[in-house]
Parts: sequence; C-alpha cells; structure tokens
Amino acid sequence: LSPVTLLDGKEFAGFDRIHRGLAYGDGLFETMRVSAGSVALWPHHVARLANGCARLGMDSPDEMLLASERDRLAEEQAESVLKLLVWRDAKSWGYDSAASRAIHRCWTSAALPPPDEAPLRVRWCDLRVARQPRLAGIKSLNRLEQVLARAEWSGSEWDEGLLLDGAGHVVGATAGNVFAVIDGSLVTPALDECGVAGVFRGWMLEADGSIGIRAILRADIERASEVFVTNAVRGIRPIAAIEDRPVAVGPVTRTWLARARRAGLISCAGLIP
Amino acid sequence: LSPVTLLDGKEFAGFDRIHRGLAYGDGLFETMRVSAGSVALWPHHVARLANGCARLGMDSPDEMLLASERDRLAEEQAESVLKLLVWRDAKSWGYDSAASRAIHRCWTSAALPPPDEAPLRVRWCDLRVARQPRLAGIKSLNRLEQVLARAEWSGSEWDEGLLLDGAGHVVGATAGNVFAVIDGSLVTPALDECGVAGVFRGWMLEADGSIGIRAILRADIERASEVFVTNAVRGIRPIAAIEDRPVAVGPVTRTWLARARRAGLISCAGLIP
Repeated sequence: LSPVTLLDGKEFAGFDRIHRGLAYGDGLFETMRVSAGSVALWPHHVARLANGCARLGMDSPDEMLLASERDRLAEEQAESVLKLLVWRDAKSWGYDSAASRAIHRCWTSAALPPPDEAPLRVRWCDLRVARQPRLAGIKSLNRLEQVLARAEWSGSEWDEGLLLDGAGHVVGATAGNVFAVIDGSLVTPALDECGVAGVFRGWMLEADGSIGIRAILRADIERASEVFVTNAVRGIRPIAAIEDRPVAVGPVTRTWLARARRAGLISCAGLIP
Repeated sequence: LSPVTLLDGKEFAGFDRIHRGLAYGDGLFETMRVSAGSVALWPHHVARLANGCARLGMDSPDEMLLASERDRLAEEQAESVLKLLVWRDAKSWGYDSAASRAIHRCWTSAALPPPDEAPLRVRWCDLRVARQPRLAGIKSLNRLEQVLARAEWSGSEWDEGLLLDGAGHVVGATAGNVFAVIDGSLVTPALDECGVAGVFRGWMLEADGSIGIRAILRADIERASEVFVTNAVRGIRPIAAIEDRPVAVGPVTRTWLARARRAGLISCAGLIP
C-alpha cells in the first residue's frame, strides 16, 4: 500500500497491517483478568468478541488459536490483565473495506491495577454518550467518548464517572456497567442505544434472571438504595458516594460480592471495611 | 507497559507507541492531496489538526517538523495521497490519559484514486450518524460509522452514500461534505452535532461568505437543483443522480469547478461531459 511510512520521524515497517485499526478503529477488543494463570469469564469474552465481529462484518478469530495464545501469555503473567484486539485487514485505503472479512489479532498484557481500598466515590460526567444502536453493546475500538469523559477529572477525589446518553438515560461508568437497587429491585441499564455490554454484567444476568434491564434515569440512581459498578478486571465495585450523596453498601451488593467471590471472579480483600 | 505483545502470533515490538491510537482512536488524522509535489490546502489541514488536538486535549505537532516530513514524502510521490495520523501517547493503560498531552505522529502515503469518469450516482445510507457535539467537526480516529455506512453497498451502482444524523438532518457523504442549491442558494449542513468539517469545505466557505450553513433535511436535498460532494483528495464531485432521481450538473456547480481549478485544487479532466 504505502511505499514509506514515518512514525515519529523514522521509517516504520508493518504499518499496513495496523492501518485500518488505527485509522478507523475498525475492530474490537476484550480486556480480561488473569487470576492464577486462568482468564476469568473466558467464554463470555469469546462470545462478545464473536458477536462484535459479526456486527461489524468480519471473521471471528479461531477459538483454538486464541486459547493457545491466551495460555502462553497467561502462564507468563499469572496475575495480570490481558488485552486482545482484533481489527479488519484490507488491501486498499478508504472507508470501503471491499467486503474484507479478514482480521489481524493482537494480544498484549499489563499489570493488574491495585485493588480498590474502599468503595468508590463517583461523579456524573458532563459528556453525554451519543446514541448509536449500530455500535451499542459491542466493545469497538472507537472509544473517544470514554477517553473524554475520563479526562473530566484528575486526582483522587473521584474514582469513577457515571455517564448519561443524549436522551438522559444512564449508560454506565466510564469503564464498567452500573447496577442499582431501585424500589427494592436490582436493575441495570438497557444497552440498545449505546454502551458496552460488559462480560461481568453478562455473567450476573445469566446467574439471576430477575435482574431488571431497563431505561434508568439519573433521578432513579439518585434515589437508589445501593449502586455498584462492574467490569471484567475488577469485578464488583461498590459505590459509597455519588458526588455529595452517601450511598450504603447494602445487602444486595454484599450478596453479589459473595457470589462473585465464590465463582472465583473477584478478589476484593480489604474492599469492604 | 507490556512484557510481550503478539501480533498475528508473532512478537511485535513497538506496540506501546501505537496502543492508545489503536485501542481507543484517541487521535486525529488528515488526508491530503499531493499535486506536482505540493500538498493542496496545507494551511487548512494544519489548522484543522491543531483545532482537533486542542479539542482532545493534546499537543499539536510542530509545524516546521510536519512541513519537513511533508516535503520529504511529497517529493517521493509527487502525485499521491498523504495521510497524517496523530494520537496521544500515555504511559499507562485505561481510558485515563493522566493528562498526557504528548503525541505520536505517523505519515503514510497511497496512490491517487482514479479520477471520476462521470458525475456521481449516490444513495441514502440507512445508518444514522450519532449526534456527538464533543467530536463534531474534527477528524478523529473514531470512524466506524463511516465504515459501516460505506459497507451498505458494493459494486459500481453507487459512487457515494449520503448520511443523515439521528435527528434526520443531512450530515454529508461517507467521505466528503455536501453542498446543495436549494431555492436558488448554495448551502451546506451545519456540523455542530456531528460530521467532519472538511478542508475543501472550509476553503469554499472562506472564498464565498454567502454560502449558507444550516440544518438541511433529506427533503431539502431531494428538491435541490444541484448537489455536489467535496473532499480534499477529489475536490468537487458533482452528483448526477440521488437514487432514482436525476440531478443536473448546473451553473453553480460549474462555477465552483472552475474556481477550484483556477485555485489549483482539482484535476477533474473528463469529469464533466
């Protein structure tokens, strides 16, 4: 494609392979927790990735191949975060993929983030997530909204930010899904218009069919008796305050912390005082 | 950051440098036309890029440095397309950029697309572009909507697709801005809610302060007497048909084709029969 590519002033081979992921975000990713050398929620990650690939019209990576690469990396880093990115290959430039379904895949790893020392203090983000049903639920490489929302605060006053969409519905946190106990029932936002359908959220919904999936307003969260955030790396993260309003870490949250711990899905030692 | 990265099964050095661009699209790009060894609309490209960097909270690349890299590449490929990508560097993972303003820059080039042989036949895309004022106007690396819209057709029946946003307003084409003559006046969509503010569009608006910038509905385009698409690589692309409705290549379009040609901004030999 390109006779020469300069990255930070030096010739860079291999750009063609990453071009379409970098230039358009024409792909997907999964962020996984490795505990004792095993990836938690592996089937959920594979299923979400396959669904995303189907939605974007690209081939899913071969599961056996993924499993062998996963094992190689998880053995090297028995307690870590593994990230898998896949994106479309295409021989030509421009948005037109020429119906190419071929993909590249890239694995990389990072250290586990330090465990939460206390329940979270969260704020409402100013950024409103755009409603785009064509991308709702999948974990695409187009994540600028999350980057901009997370950039709204720095320092340690807040641990996370809650996001509303353009219609005023709660989407989740910048890096996780949200669950709340409202009028005595555990509910989580529907993600038909935007947001990422987290694998930990998926595990919870499978484990308990009574969890409500519906439109949730900011006012609903503000009167909720319990609120927590979930993601695949940190599991359940109880919320202790939404801006200046304290929130209790109540019985529903504690029950789910215990269920997740029994399922081996979280190590939250020290989180709950 | 990462002890080992596997790209398509082989160890891949240098992933850390591209991570944030690839994983989040946390950056911007410019696609430029090189004619006779010079980049057309260079000041407009630099200005849009600087604006985008400011909007995303990252440093703009140094202009002198960019100009020297531009000249090196444009000399090698005197008739070509140059693409400049910039994205945020960050030492840690996650959406949090830790207020990092540092950037990477990457230049690459491609052959000029073949010139249009005739005015365009265009269709309406089904995909509705999401309204996100925080990203409106800039040319970010989050371009999945354009990829999905372009994937709605293949083959040669259609040359381009027109896009509406979630509120039913015309945004533009998948790879260009739209201008239309409506009730005798030349107008182009306002881009406060979504869309990319193209540099060719910017040049036209500077050249003629009477062009209207406003919300335009599909019905407005359907009754327009002339419609054309613009972008930095192909200049002005007249539209000859919107689905089954023929559109004339009229006097306003011809005037702008001539103005652009005089300014050295387009080589459309053979386009107009």
